[in-house]
Amino acid sequence: MEHKIKVAVNGYGVIGKRVADAVEAQEDMELVGVSDVTADYRVASAVAKGIPVYASTDEARQQMRAAGYPLVGGLSDLLGKVDVVVDCTPAGIGAANVDLYRSLGVKSVFQGGEKHSLTGHSFVAHANYKSTLGRDTTRVVSCNTTATVRTLTALQDAELLSKARGVLVRRATDPWESDHSGIMNTVVPEGRIPSHQGPDAQSVVPNLDVVTMAAKGAHTQNHLHFWTVELTRAAEAEEVLAALKAMPRIAFVKRSDGVVAVNSTVELMQDLGRPRGDMYEVAIWEDILTVQGNELFWTYTIDNQAIVTPENIDAIRALAGTVEDGAESIRRTDRALGVRADFTATD
Amino acid sequence: MEHKIKVAVNGYGVIGKRVADAVEAQEDMELVGVSDVTADYRVASAVAKGIPVYASTDEARQQMRAAGYPLVGGLSDLLGKVDVVVDCTPAGIGAANVDLYRSLGVKSVFQGGEKHSLTGHSFVAHANYKSTLGRDTTRVVSCNTTATVRTLTALQDAELLSKARGVLVRRATDPWESDHSGIMNTVVPEGRIPSHQGPDAQSVVPNLDVVTMAAKGAHTQNHLHFWTVELTRAAEAEEVLAALKAMPRIAFVKRSDGVVAVNSTVELMQDLGRPRGDMYEVAIWEDILTVQGNELFWTYTIDNQAIVTPENIDAIRALAGTVEDGAESIRRTDRALGVRADFTATD
Repeated sequence: MEHKIKVAVNGYGVIGKRVADAVEAQEDMELVGVSDVTADYRVASAVAKGIPVYASTDEARQQMRAAGYPLVGGLSDLLGKVDVVVDCTPAGIGAANVDLYRSLGVKSVFQGGEKHSLTGHSFVAHANYKSTLGRDTTRVVSCNTTATVRTLTALQDAELLSKARGVLVRRATDPWESDHSGIMNTVVPEGRIPSHQGPDAQSVVPNLDVVTMAAKGAHTQNHLHFWTVELTRAAEAEEVLAALKAMPRIAFVKRSDGVVAVNSTVELMQDLGRPRGDMYEVAIWEDILTVQGNELFWTYTIDNQAIVTPENIDAIRALAGTVEDGAESIRRTDRALGVRADFTATD
Repeated sequence: MEHKIKVAVNGYGVIGKRVADAVEAQEDMELVGVSDVTADYRVASAVAKGIPVYASTDEARQQMRAAGYPLVGGLSDLLGKVDVVVDCTPAGIGAANVDLYRSLGVKSVFQGGEKHSLTGHSFVAHANYKSTLGRDTTRVVSCNTTATVRTLTALQDAELLSKARGVLVRRATDPWESDHSGIMNTVVPEGRIPSHQGPDAQSVVPNLDVVTMAAKGAHTQNHLHFWTVELTRAAEAEEVLAALKAMPRIAFVKRSDGVVAVNSTVELMQDLGRPRGDMYEVAIWEDILTVQGNELFWTYTIDNQAIVTPENIDAIRALAGTVEDGAESIRRTDRALGVRADFTATD
């Protein structure tokens, strides 16, 4: 039995709680604990599940004590026990933590809300696991960028990608914040072209010729992407499908199966028994995808809350250096999480 | 004083009531009456405004009599008094009317819900007014197609258009149907690529190289379009803006003026005193439009209920043949409706 990677999660929010569960699901990792700044229902759920809880601030420590939680200690105590910390604090907060992690010799994974310059390295497992080995920190890119890199590198691997132009219809806000954040009965275009996701994808794969435009829709679940891709040559749809099927964490859905919108995939994930209804895969509509000569058009939906979960797990392994082969790490992660290539096949 | 074109509107719904008001606003047209199949609040509003009302069916005749409306007669009576009828009945119904109109020698304008093959001619004023002269019928294309043709022919006129790929985020349903039709908290991609708007634009301008993809958003007002355009050559943004400014019925909006989303333009139209808050223009974000080499990226919003109103007016004139110059017809229409090139300038 190899040494288990000891992992901390700092920030038990939308990403943190999912990463914590995913760490627990890995045979080669141990979730030592999670740390947070509140004592609200989210942290209460961690306590209820028996996850060791730490306080990131003095105020949180007092709140957790008042709530009667079995508080183990402070963030520094937690960091003293781990190999890798996954920083899932809100965007911008992580930047203040990097020096703390470095000073304690703890390797760190940040999220897409932070700037690339914070870590100097941005991560999508299939694209650049190898260049993460030996580093002390990396940044898992955002949900939209993760999907963009997965799908476009699938085409790149098959030497089919010339350039890609995408339109991203984003969810307005996450469900847990719907009581105080969000939009209603409108669509809000992003204020600049390109939107940040294109350049962000290039922080992972510098030679990607990609431009993105984006808008916020009046819904709270999932993003929907449309892409116009110029291929290196005329191709058949079958070649494109084969390239996509060779890529992990992409799954096909079909309108003919009744999967007709983003809410359909949300329902399907719940029916499949996924924790929190999470979808780790990019769900591409196989029966909408169209190739005309050397142009490819497609649309897919992604679960903005869950898609980066497996990437975080691989980033932990890459930083820890316990698995040198990215493909092997992806296999381990995906087996533990039940990631699928087809949601409706009986595999 | 020239002879006024006598006009009937068949179907007093979303399009019909707007066309009726727009006909009344033209100095060279007379609204002889409107005909409908119901006696509900929409028809009541026509009665209240003093518009002569006709019944399209025996059932409607009874309902209108029961409601105490000053019913003038049946649809055939109305058609006997006019030069042109604008058919604004629901999609598919119009197809059953074309023979009636022809048999009575009344020229007819249909809407985008009907097939191109019904009339053999599809209309956008700037693009093909001339080819409408001498015809007995035409079809004003849908809101999305109208916007697509206006903007792309602006580039074509300036010899800048090579090809265009668009993503259309559509409103879910019209406000008046929000009680029984619509979607909530989701986005629904159209089931095929290309969506129908691209081929439909080619029914007006056959040499347009255009592909569209579309999705329904969870909102009831306005569509939002994103376009990736390949130009014939590298250009500056100023050249593109100049080409757009030379085209009627396109107006610029700016985020720096606080116009940040489709709801902003809805509010602005109301503040400008537009009837029903109608926006006849394509509202392009001047400060989001971006040119990179020979690629142009832009986003605009359109009022799906109102944008075809001026096109219907021009179609009436083209069929009547009273004005041979399309540009002159557009000037008359736009002056009467208060169409603007800039919503915030004091012109």
